[in-house]
Amino acid sequence: MKGWEFTYTHKPLRLVEKPDPVAKPGYVALDVKACGLCHSDVGALEDEKWLALMKYPLIIGHEYAGVITEVGEGVTGYNVGDRVGVCPMPTKDGYGGGYGRDGGYATKSTAPAEMLVPVPDNVSFTYAAAATDAGMTSHHAVAVAGGAGPGINMGIIGIGGLGQIGTRVAVLKGANVYAASRNPAAREEAMKLGCKAAYPSISEVAEHHDLDVIVDFAGAGKTTADALEAVGVNGRVVLVGMAKLETTLNTMPLITKEVTIVGSQGGNVDDIASVYKMMASGDLKPDVIEIGFDDIPAGLEKLKQGGVRGRLVAVMDR
Amino acid sequence: MKGWEFTYTHKPLRLVEKPDPVAKPGYVALDVKACGLCHSDVGALEDEKWLALMKYPLIIGHEYAGVITEVGEGVTGYNVGDRVGVCPMPTKDGYGGGYGRDGGYATKSTAPAEMLVPVPDNVSFTYAAAATDAGMTSHHAVAVAGGAGPGINMGIIGIGGLGQIGTRVAVLKGANVYAASRNPAAREEAMKLGCKAAYPSISEVAEHHDLDVIVDFAGAGKTTADALEAVGVNGRVVLVGMAKLETTLNTMPLITKEVTIVGSQGGNVDDIASVYKMMASGDLKPDVIEIGFDDIPAGLEKLKQGGVRGRLVAVMDR
Repeated sequence: MKGWEFTYTHKPLRLVEKPDPVAKPGYVALDVKACGLCHSDVGALEDEKWLALMKYPLIIGHEYAGVITEVGEGVTGYNVGDRVGVCPMPTKDGYGGGYGRDGGYATKSTAPAEMLVPVPDNVSFTYAAAATDAGMTSHHAVAVAGGAGPGINMGIIGIGGLGQIGTRVAVLKGANVYAASRNPAAREEAMKLGCKAAYPSISEVAEHHDLDVIVDFAGAGKTTADALEAVGVNGRVVLVGMAKLETTLNTMPLITKEVTIVGSQGGNVDDIASVYKMMASGDLKPDVIEIGFDDIPAGLEKLKQGGVRGRLVAVMDR
Repeated sequence: MKGWEFTYTHKPLRLVEKPDPVAKPGYVALDVKACGLCHSDVGALEDEKWLALMKYPLIIGHEYAGVITEVGEGVTGYNVGDRVGVCPMPTKDGYGGGYGRDGGYATKSTAPAEMLVPVPDNVSFTYAAAATDAGMTSHHAVAVAGGAGPGINMGIIGIGGLGQIGTRVAVLKGANVYAASRNPAAREEAMKLGCKAAYPSISEVAEHHDLDVIVDFAGAGKTTADALEAVGVNGRVVLVGMAKLETTLNTMPLITKEVTIVGSQGGNVDDIASVYKMMASGDLKPDVIEIGFDDIPAGLEKLKQGGVRGRLVAVMDR
């Protein structure tokens, strides 16, 4: 097998060849078919703080799906040939694939059985991979932390990669969704995804619509402060984005409106399964850009430069 | 009847004589026996912003208890002679006593039946009054918003008037309570109230103890930011205090620990009933300082100056 290995912050990924991984008890081995490129990987290459979360050297990539090639001792419910996505969250024995063990920027990898999610036949591996982190995180933020559902008026700030998926998930869950983005193209996109209306800022949304919940996929500091002012009495603000790691809040509306602010990170296998269902029915079609295995380092560099619209996904057979 | 009337911001309260109030349908009239002095009343005298919440001229005072003298049409379950406390929260017909209608700095007042709470025989009117706002707000913050209960490790920031009651309520609810106060005397008091330990800051509490929930009765900006850092994974920070109306938060721990921050203000009749129960059993004995009806303006001036330890309560028969 071959894979892209992280050795240390500020060092380029290294192409390595290794013996094929074997499935230890409780695990499966798989042929990786696709692996999404995530901003967190850019973070790991740029910021020493990530070292605390990682073993290294290690093949990174944590958003992957593939076909089972070996089933370890004690694993039930899965067979060789099954198409599966891998939940990237930490497991009972440590950090997940691409952090605590070799991950998905590789032709082969492994995963513990409890982190597998069966991929419906009509969902591509590209979508299946993107669903495991971008999909899971967006779904968890709007549907679990945000409680999107019929009768809920939900504002969504930031219609980028995660925000687009979150917007669509919220619409499919039956919420009345209102988008806030400074980018006119993103607002147009939001309307295509089923939003009731789109404005340049969440404050402008709130001038026209009562908001029960606001999910901040931008996390630009001011966006969270504005969300607190914009949300209604007993409202809820879900913070996902980390564009700026500081926000200055007016505590008067927080207290007098008894607002709840909650951070949301990641999710679980149930979120991924829900996303697969929405993809299988054709209702959720996130923007993806397919690249090849060899293009992974260049793809991460592009992500770092910014302005990529849609999720970059490396397709291993390409 | 006589009462202390608020006429406008920055004007002294005016002693007025009025005809005795009558009980309109759904209301009772009562002899006020005691009325607590609240910082909000200092606020109303000092800051024009409060005018938006008030009718004026109006007899203020919103933390009162007394004896029913007349029962209005349609009121059931209450009789002349009943000892009752009055929940100060807004009602369906407007702001509560002392805001939307004449309040408790008076010898007589009124209250809608749904805002009454029966006072147990062995609870003094002084305690019964203090329970309606200081008690309700503290109880709601720790027991409802904070979920104090057995097995919960709760940090409490600020062992002042509300914080002392909140601390004791949390202890009585079965939580393991840890106090944070810069004031050594307040830390000593906290230990007497049943805390497991007391430290100068919540950060120091967190160095020694895992915290599931932190209730910030200070609200000094930095206290809330520190609480966010100090609370555990999936923890909860309840903000009650308004010492500073701005806080700058590090969103990294908010997101990665998936912390919930929630504002808590006021409460309801159930909170007051719970506080009465704790007072009746002798388990909750908040510090109170009794003054007379004539001393109300001077008492509010003392509150404004700061440093009052315990709740000032005006006793009308004194």
